[in-house]
Amino acid sequence: MQTDALRDVMKDVDRNKDAQLEKLKEFLRIPSVSTKPEHEGDCRRCADWLGEQLRSMRLNVEVAETGGHPCVVAKNDHKRGRPTVLVYGHYDVQPPEPLDLWKTPPFEPTVRDGAIYARGTADDKGQVWCHVAAVQAWQELGGLPVNVTLLIEGEEEIGSVNLKEFVKKRAEDFKADIAVVSDTNQFAKGLPAITYGLRGLAYMEVFVTGPGHDLHSGLYGGAVPNPANALVEMLATLHDADGRVTVPGFYDDVLDLSREERDMWKALPFDENRFKSELKLTETYGEKGFTTLERKWARPTCDINGLTSGYQGKGAKTVIASQASAKVSMRLVPNQDGAKIAAAFTKALQDRAPRGVKVEVVTHSHTNPVLVSREGAAMRAAQAALEKGFGKKPTLMREGGSIPVVSLIKNVLGIDTLLVGFGLDDDRIHSPNEKFDLDGLFGGMRTSAALFDELSRTKF
Amino acid sequence: MQTDALRDVMKDVDRNKDAQLEKLKEFLRIPSVSTKPEHEGDCRRCADWLGEQLRSMRLNVEVAETGGHPCVVAKNDHKRGRPTVLVYGHYDVQPPEPLDLWKTPPFEPTVRDGAIYARGTADDKGQVWCHVAAVQAWQELGGLPVNVTLLIEGEEEIGSVNLKEFVKKRAEDFKADIAVVSDTNQFAKGLPAITYGLRGLAYMEVFVTGPGHDLHSGLYGGAVPNPANALVEMLATLHDADGRVTVPGFYDDVLDLSREERDMWKALPFDENRFKSELKLTETYGEKGFTTLERKWARPTCDINGLTSGYQGKGAKTVIASQASAKVSMRLVPNQDGAKIAAAFTKALQDRAPRGVKVEVVTHSHTNPVLVSREGAAMRAAQAALEKGFGKKPTLMREGGSIPVVSLIKNVLGIDTLLVGFGLDDDRIHSPNEKFDLDGLFGGMRTSAALFDELSRTKF
Repeated sequence: MQTDALRDVMKDVDRNKDAQLEKLKEFLRIPSVSTKPEHEGDCRRCADWLGEQLRSMRLNVEVAETGGHPCVVAKNDHKRGRPTVLVYGHYDVQPPEPLDLWKTPPFEPTVRDGAIYARGTADDKGQVWCHVAAVQAWQELGGLPVNVTLLIEGEEEIGSVNLKEFVKKRAEDFKADIAVVSDTNQFAKGLPAITYGLRGLAYMEVFVTGPGHDLHSGLYGGAVPNPANALVEMLATLHDADGRVTVPGFYDDVLDLSREERDMWKALPFDENRFKSELKLTETYGEKGFTTLERKWARPTCDINGLTSGYQGKGAKTVIASQASAKVSMRLVPNQDGAKIAAAFTKALQDRAPRGVKVEVVTHSHTNPVLVSREGAAMRAAQAALEKGFGKKPTLMREGGSIPVVSLIKNVLGIDTLLVGFGLDDDRIHSPNEKFDLDGLFGGMRTSAALFDELSRTKF
Repeated sequence: MQTDALRDVMKDVDRNKDAQLEKLKEFLRIPSVSTKPEHEGDCRRCADWLGEQLRSMRLNVEVAETGGHPCVVAKNDHKRGRPTVLVYGHYDVQPPEPLDLWKTPPFEPTVRDGAIYARGTADDKGQVWCHVAAVQAWQELGGLPVNVTLLIEGEEEIGSVNLKEFVKKRAEDFKADIAVVSDTNQFAKGLPAITYGLRGLAYMEVFVTGPGHDLHSGLYGGAVPNPANALVEMLATLHDADGRVTVPGFYDDVLDLSREERDMWKALPFDENRFKSELKLTETYGEKGFTTLERKWARPTCDINGLTSGYQGKGAKTVIASQASAKVSMRLVPNQDGAKIAAAFTKALQDRAPRGVKVEVVTHSHTNPVLVSREGAAMRAAQAALEKGFGKKPTLMREGGSIPVVSLIKNVLGIDTLLVGFGLDDDRIHSPNEKFDLDGLFGGMRTSAALFDELSRTKF
């Protein structure tokens, strides 16, 4: 069913594509890297800029203090008797390093080959912009058909450290019938999807300390504990020969995949060879007994995300470093518990510390996995909206990443989330040359416009 | 026996201590970091400066091109019928990083607590200066009693990459009866030593490559080979539970320690508790069945000197890096062969590469261990000189570091080397806050002055 109002809005969205793309570029030029203290001012500038845009669409906007980077909160005039939709997104981005691998600079958005390239294009400024463009179109053509609350935070890439407190304190402001989060992907180019499961995350850092200062490897080598040697020995114990994680209790709470889900995923048009060639892999790799999609979507992991010790420049330096460290993240699946896994990891590493070194394990953050029902009215509304946005029936899938806010919204506000994302697997989010396909951007704008229409007629 | 000439020279050395310390500071202020291309000009400036100093002492000086950083070659008037002494040293220094751990800046030499602090104080500018000061004193008081050739190179910290070719080509210029190298330590503060054995070195770098670009650990984790995981797994196999290196054939050529040497070392005043407390270690560590001195001086090692992968900044970044790398050095003992060990290490790592990753092993440099006779006239001359320099009979010891030039001098020129060094184990060479005790500096100047006298009466 296509309402007249939606028809007009869709036309408006299509007509304004180029103008919206230019606006998105402004958004992308602000280097809102939340993890780096030197970008604190940029994060605030980004929030202020976004607030201004939303104000110009006749929304009530607040750039709200959180204790960290601010949140942008924007609402249309909420009217009784119609559904309320909470749209969550984030304006902060990952660090762009290594800079020399970018073909065009990370904060100078550039369109080429049907995509826009810059840090934060797919994750998540471009996806936020899909909703902003849809809101603007509706507002210009008589107003949004539902109550909308936009909550765009600035700390997603650093574990949303202040969001929980903020949402708790202001829970009344965020009451809604359904939440919409667009920080996920299509199944493939032109194959839109709704994501019904996400992995959780426990992000740890391990510090191994030996001698009180760096030592000459000739004068001391062989007679003192080398923290780098100790670190690799400890980290190497984390997997067994079958690729299973050896942290005690790691799999205790893992929900087995049902026959039905495994069959559904096997039927998806996933091309293993294309996956390998896109990533320049000679072979895929992972836990024995599972397919690539199962490994990505429904199996937990333990991956080193950073290694640091000793001399890292060109050439040779014969040093036994006083310290070695590793950043290690574990992706979690239903029903693993982030806090429990973080504790088990910490204990395992400390238990496995070789003699003579001190081991410290820091938990940076943890978030639980998410699994939502594949049934219900909101799910049907999202399916209809995606079909209108992209001209194709969407797939139901899971995703391997973590979106901590989904469990936060459920636990604190009691609201279910529709994960309707427009990115692609090859968008290189968190990597150099991140991009967002223009098809995804424009399809996303159309989908959001249609979703507001669908949800206005949904019974909650 | 104390000659009149030596008595005068010793007085002159003692009188000019402070002036020589000021000159040494000038030498130390030049950041001659040979491994860093951006310091190329500083290395040349350092060589030129040193050349000027030596010229002012009526030596014939050449700042000679080598293809890399220049060598300073200086000679007094060589006369027939008296011994010729080749003094080797190096003016280049290790990188000073990490800079924030220096109490005073690495290139602003500062005297405190009876020592001079700066990069290169003990390794090796300060030790070079012992000989320069002795040469100056002799030259001012009638001239050196022996033919002296100073060869001060600028690439010791990068494996003396051009020295061999240079010395080969100019072998006639470097003919001598004995070589003297001061790049080693006293046994302990006030306990001078002659070093009769050195370990060799094979310095390797391992690069592990997986996916063609960095990946998001959520979207891909568990389904792709992680180079950092693979690297730690490979490196962890390098030692067995007894701390022995597992590279096949590693111990094949290792010369066992004689009962006599083990007994001699057991009799040395080595304080294990002090060793631990100086290094802030809870315990020493190493190959089973050997003492700390044996591990340091006569057993081979395999130590990670650098680890690099993924995100190294503050906070969290959920990335599977495309590449992970490690710098690994092996200290070698008589009669291991550097080239053979480098090849065995390379093969071992490639054999142990997990599926799905590419492993590349680079050999930065290798040098063979050294063991010289503890007998002979030159050794007795050095013992006498050290006793005059420090007022104490010297110890005979080995050292764990590598001085590739010693085997180069032997192999190319056929000359034996006296290793007469004035540093201390706690000088923090290659680390922040490197220092050289003033006692060592001044005792070294006196020793060098006396050594020229002793060698003038030595029959070769």
